[in-house]
Amino acid sequence: MDLTGFRAALGDIPIEDHPKLVQQKSRDHYWYSPILKAQLDQVTADLVVMPRSVEDVVTVLAAAYKFDVPITPRGAGTGNYGQAMPLAGGAMLDLKNMDKVLEIKPDRVRAEAGAIMVKMDEETKAAVGAELRFHPSTYRMATIGGFIAGGSGGIGSVRWGGLRNLGNILGLKIVTCEETPRVLDIAGADIMKLAHAYGTNGIIVEAEMPLAPAYDWVEVVVGFDEFLDSCRYAEALAGQDGILLKEISPVAAPVPYDYFGRYRDFLRQDQSVVLIMVAPNSVDALTLFTSHHGGEILHRSDVNDLDAAGRKLPPIYEFTWNHTTLRGLKIDSTITYLQTQYPTLEHLEKIHRMLGDEMPMHIEMTRFDGRIVFSGLPIVRYTGEERLEEIIRLHEENGCLVFNPHRYTLEEGGMKQTDRAQLAFKKEADPKGLLNPGKMIAWDDPDFDFDSGRVWLFAGLAEQARGAA
Amino acid sequence: MDLTGFRAALGDIPIEDHPKLVQQKSRDHYWYSPILKAQLDQVTADLVVMPRSVEDVVTVLAAAYKFDVPITPRGAGTGNYGQAMPLAGGAMLDLKNMDKVLEIKPDRVRAEAGAIMVKMDEETKAAVGAELRFHPSTYRMATIGGFIAGGSGGIGSVRWGGLRNLGNILGLKIVTCEETPRVLDIAGADIMKLAHAYGTNGIIVEAEMPLAPAYDWVEVVVGFDEFLDSCRYAEALAGQDGILLKEISPVAAPVPYDYFGRYRDFLRQDQSVVLIMVAPNSVDALTLFTSHHGGEILHRSDVNDLDAAGRKLPPIYEFTWNHTTLRGLKIDSTITYLQTQYPTLEHLEKIHRMLGDEMPMHIEMTRFDGRIVFSGLPIVRYTGEERLEEIIRLHEENGCLVFNPHRYTLEEGGMKQTDRAQLAFKKEADPKGLLNPGKMIAWDDPDFDFDSGRVWLFAGLAEQARGAA
Repeated sequence: MDLTGFRAALGDIPIEDHPKLVQQKSRDHYWYSPILKAQLDQVTADLVVMPRSVEDVVTVLAAAYKFDVPITPRGAGTGNYGQAMPLAGGAMLDLKNMDKVLEIKPDRVRAEAGAIMVKMDEETKAAVGAELRFHPSTYRMATIGGFIAGGSGGIGSVRWGGLRNLGNILGLKIVTCEETPRVLDIAGADIMKLAHAYGTNGIIVEAEMPLAPAYDWVEVVVGFDEFLDSCRYAEALAGQDGILLKEISPVAAPVPYDYFGRYRDFLRQDQSVVLIMVAPNSVDALTLFTSHHGGEILHRSDVNDLDAAGRKLPPIYEFTWNHTTLRGLKIDSTITYLQTQYPTLEHLEKIHRMLGDEMPMHIEMTRFDGRIVFSGLPIVRYTGEERLEEIIRLHEENGCLVFNPHRYTLEEGGMKQTDRAQLAFKKEADPKGLLNPGKMIAWDDPDFDFDSGRVWLFAGLAEQARGAA
Repeated sequence: MDLTGFRAALGDIPIEDHPKLVQQKSRDHYWYSPILKAQLDQVTADLVVMPRSVEDVVTVLAAAYKFDVPITPRGAGTGNYGQAMPLAGGAMLDLKNMDKVLEIKPDRVRAEAGAIMVKMDEETKAAVGAELRFHPSTYRMATIGGFIAGGSGGIGSVRWGGLRNLGNILGLKIVTCEETPRVLDIAGADIMKLAHAYGTNGIIVEAEMPLAPAYDWVEVVVGFDEFLDSCRYAEALAGQDGILLKEISPVAAPVPYDYFGRYRDFLRQDQSVVLIMVAPNSVDALTLFTSHHGGEILHRSDVNDLDAAGRKLPPIYEFTWNHTTLRGLKIDSTITYLQTQYPTLEHLEKIHRMLGDEMPMHIEMTRFDGRIVFSGLPIVRYTGEERLEEIIRLHEENGCLVFNPHRYTLEEGGMKQTDRAQLAFKKEADPKGLLNPGKMIAWDDPDFDFDSGRVWLFAGLAEQARGAA
């Protein structure tokens, strides 16, 4: 790594090298996980580069290739798995200056990778009355490029599935890291090579996304005495084809009362809730359906969107997905979380009864290949890595999936196998392995045995840890 | 029945009493069924009344009550079950003069009952870029009131389910048949009392319907060598949450070649097809998905929408739902059809292998309580009533539902049980039983045993048949 040569080759492209600021930009929300916090706390880049255009990105990647500088791309740094943390140092590629919406059509939008999702929606709503199909709970901060590279789904996934479902990304423009970087337009099946690859095999600089009709979504909180009743209701509601919903999230007591301070005036501590976003033309049907299912409507944003102190409540999506955990961490920094999937209510019930308040349940109803499933983001009252592993094992032994959010590699956080297409494309697009090193086990350690039960450790990270110690 | 008094009470409300024209307006598409054709061929009203307003309808129903005149409401008469046929004579209530769109909002539309659905969509598209969630294949003729009173679902039901799903009708205005008819606004749970009640318990005069975003739907015909492969593909396609579709209909060979003349230049006789309507932003994903599943794209309206003679093809929806059968009947008047539901591909396969070309399959993929199911509208090569009953029995014995389209009563065509809420409401809204007599068994014959295997016969119809003979 020749940082002096690299910096000289950047010309007038803005950089930042103040160590404190570089460290800030080297971090994401990895601290959700006590395990990642311990592993990654020392991680920092050497500098931050802030390209303003595709041409700038080409210049940066040519220089990286020439001077062997690792490049870790960053959107808003709202990921939770160290996706955007520079395990081998080098340069952060901060795409915040590339934030323009480039083209809006009635059914699609094209934007630069650094465009912030809520701002994209503001523009498309004004232009064509449409919005992105789904977004993470970090909607007001997250960038479209970061979401595609490091995310999977979110608010809207109950209707549209996830980012990796065919049709949910229409096209990407990427830049490769070669002697002469190529700018490639990616469409069709090739999109899957780049989505959720953490930027390991090409830098996403533009994305074209399908739009859905925009509504002034009504936010509704429904209360239940029993958490399992709230899940039964949520599943049945998700199956109501005539009720247009963007979000359905059951959250078990005492999480809502204990962690959602702004909701306290309409909640009891022993109440479980379902957080809902519904289209205005479906509110009446939702109300009727809710009364049939014995749910109590505790809050409706179309009736009152203020808290007891008369302040406007935060958007309901900022109580869902990873924000549920975030609000918990603000109250109790000892908790952590898991990412799970329960194929049926029976699976969910079994695990819930088994773990009780050690793992207060938080479910996101999602569509997965056309079926409605319970995606879990349960809170875990953390007592150590060993017990956490045991909880994961309990899930797996009972037919429930775990996507481990306490791992920084693509494979260990995901399907525990190599994505051959992603790997093959990395060989073409990043022959020196400079893009986000240490995130794709298959690149560094092709023979790693995922059945070994061993956690993989990136060698470069071990060195960096020794250096810092 | 005092027709003279009735006519005098109508004032200046337009009527028609030329017997040929009255007979025309007394018929729907009952002739799809050889059984209904034999039963109902003699049915005719005494006159047709054509109200121009809610006030006119009130006047007509007050007169009907006073002079004991049966009233059978009619939209465009595109139903197939004799829904709109006056089994006890009296007056047809033709709502064609009440065809105004009353109010358009971004997410809903309110129209008079006689508004033609395609025209409603033209207005809402122009005003707010939105359209009805679904419509029958008779879109260009059918009225919204007729659809609600006598229909169930159609093009769009693969996404939104059916009319009786909560949220798919927002409100109705109806007129009761009493000494002083009441004009009632119906919302919430009460809507289910009126939907698919054939106008037996109130005359629908206005409807408020939710809108979905309008797209320039791309029409695609995909070919398969094996019908079951086309169904496997269709089911998997319906489960692609990221691909926005409005219609998926697998049709078994030789139906497409034999009955869809305008499609012949791109079809082989032994090819089964899937008829698809897809949003423009999902065409690329559909194409990719189709190639993964070994389907051959035979036609795309965004590439060419002309037949071999250079004429514009009819809209693809006029090859689906009841139009498939209609096109068949034009070529071979001896065929008929059934309405079925196959819970899984295995059920469908079993029946298909059992009946083969005696019952060429035609499937409509629909959502039913959140699940994707195979709704069937198979062609039946008719050899008599006895064999038809046997085919129905074969379905039921193998766990497949049949909604018998060869029956004119609500119960026998539907769930073979009384809808208590519909019946209770009829007692309030039509105490003399003048609205569409003979369609609700529970009214005329509360003790009828649906398990008897007997077909119910409306006494008034028997009288009318004797009168005509």
